[in-house]
Amino acid sequence: MNPINRVAIVGGIHGNELTGVYLIEKFQRFPERVKRSSFETLTLLGNPKAVEVNRRYIDKDLNRCFHNQDLHDPTSSNYEERRAKTIYQLLKPQGKSPVDLLVDLHSTTANMGLTIILGNNHPFNLQLAAYLSAINPLVRVYSYAQDSQKDACLRSICDLSFSIEVGSVAQGVIDADFFIKTEELIYAVLDYLEAYNQGKTLLSDRTFALYEYLGIIDYPRNQEGKIQAMIHPQLQGKDYEALHPGDPLFLSFDGQAIAYEGKSTVYPVFINEAAYYEKGIAMCLTQKQLIYVDPSESSNKVGGSAGMGKSNPKAD
Amino acid sequence: MNPINRVAIVGGIHGNELTGVYLIEKFQRFPERVKRSSFETLTLLGNPKAVEVNRRYIDKDLNRCFHNQDLHDPTSSNYEERRAKTIYQLLKPQGKSPVDLLVDLHSTTANMGLTIILGNNHPFNLQLAAYLSAINPLVRVYSYAQDSQKDACLRSICDLSFSIEVGSVAQGVIDADFFIKTEELIYAVLDYLEAYNQGKTLLSDRTFALYEYLGIIDYPRNQEGKIQAMIHPQLQGKDYEALHPGDPLFLSFDGQAIAYEGKSTVYPVFINEAAYYEKGIAMCLTQKQLIYVDPSESSNKVGGSAGMGKSNPKAD
Repeated sequence: MNPINRVAIVGGIHGNELTGVYLIEKFQRFPERVKRSSFETLTLLGNPKAVEVNRRYIDKDLNRCFHNQDLHDPTSSNYEERRAKTIYQLLKPQGKSPVDLLVDLHSTTANMGLTIILGNNHPFNLQLAAYLSAINPLVRVYSYAQDSQKDACLRSICDLSFSIEVGSVAQGVIDADFFIKTEELIYAVLDYLEAYNQGKTLLSDRTFALYEYLGIIDYPRNQEGKIQAMIHPQLQGKDYEALHPGDPLFLSFDGQAIAYEGKSTVYPVFINEAAYYEKGIAMCLTQKQLIYVDPSESSNKVGGSAGMGKSNPKAD
Repeated sequence: MNPINRVAIVGGIHGNELTGVYLIEKFQRFPERVKRSSFETLTLLGNPKAVEVNRRYIDKDLNRCFHNQDLHDPTSSNYEERRAKTIYQLLKPQGKSPVDLLVDLHSTTANMGLTIILGNNHPFNLQLAAYLSAINPLVRVYSYAQDSQKDACLRSICDLSFSIEVGSVAQGVIDADFFIKTEELIYAVLDYLEAYNQGKTLLSDRTFALYEYLGIIDYPRNQEGKIQAMIHPQLQGKDYEALHPGDPLFLSFDGQAIAYEGKSTVYPVFINEAAYYEKGIAMCLTQKQLIYVDPSESSNKVGGSAGMGKSNPKAD
């Protein structure tokens, strides 16, 4: 694989997720903090208009506007569709070098701790995630390796890309603890990339847990789409913990528990994320996989699946 | 004092505070839950349009629209100003019996637990607050006994009134635990009022902590009004805990701690409430008072300050 020449750090794709907004502001005030000798670092505030009014978006969720077809559709006209095209041009300018690696900063009202969300299981992404989870035991790795066009997230425009999703943090709130932890994580990413460019590897072989997306569960709703139950108190805040068949999932407003009726143990994430009510998502279910990464096998040629193997998927 | 004939429970004055929104919906579906034999219970969704779009308000914070002058101003024209007049007419209809007691349901991103906010220190309000804190040790009592017209909150339209403010809960999220606890608190209020009307008293004499509003502290800002620091991690979530002179208050984005420079120990509340960023409030400061309430001294005549006395205000 080629060296990393350009890295982009994007925050505020959602205007009310302030950790990313204020980190980008900090990096723009103190650019030396994200400067490294072997690559260029771009910092970008994703949705300035939404930041101004402290909302997730103005017309449409910007993090669903990066569908390849939409990016090349001259008729798309709402604010976020236009903004997505501007961002795409900044990160992948025609005739110039595109960004090689992209970090997108988010926060969530779910108890996701410090989550790395991979949009694909590229070995380079997995090795970087393995490294981050090795240096910080609070780091969790969630893989949403669907058809990259399906959700049309920002991270889908680069193979080497991931989101940092921290929480629980309320929308419109800056939480200093998560601000500091996210900042440290970003510096660790940049140091890792610098070492990579210099032919060093910071990662020794390692096994880490990868939580792979399986599907979603919506809230129970009535015929008009109104929510009829809430996340069960026993499940609230239990992101990344095992949910077994029969465990309580929801509690109806009149006090009836509703159990998980799946056939196997799963690991829910994004439990009770505020922005997902309107998307029909009460939580995402994942399966836990143990992933073995050995960077020495692939050195700086991380192509294919060299140096990566799945171990027993049932391991807890 | 006369018996209580009409009680109003209002939720969703802020459209993205869902505990109140869904409790009102529940009470309207199951009216027998809030029905008591000796008084009428009204339930009201405060700001339906804001609920629909999951925002605090459409044009203006509805909970600042109940200034007496504005309520009688025929020219006020934005959505919340009109809505405030409608609510006022419902609760205080001309020529008919007004509501005697008002409970207003809110949630906050601050770690306020189960807070009773008194808009005035009417002995009846204090006795009710004393009772609620006696039956549930999680209950805190915050007194914002300013000029009732100053903030023009809904609760200012009734002498016998209080808000229930629960948190931390993110905006746009239903937290089952707080939903259940708020519901139980409302039933306890209704049972208390029923007993009062029947000449019984549920409260024995009791001393409880009253946190009285002193003032606010804003975030450090630059000349353009932009926030330059966040709540210090050591203060985050420490609502109702003692803040001493010299204790850390804020942490600037470049890592400098900013200390509390007041001269006496105070007890901050509403620390890092999302909706208060735009109001220039990082937290409210209170002083802790111990209040002694003896209902037997005032029986059902709670006028004046009978049965209530302040003890040492410095007591912790």
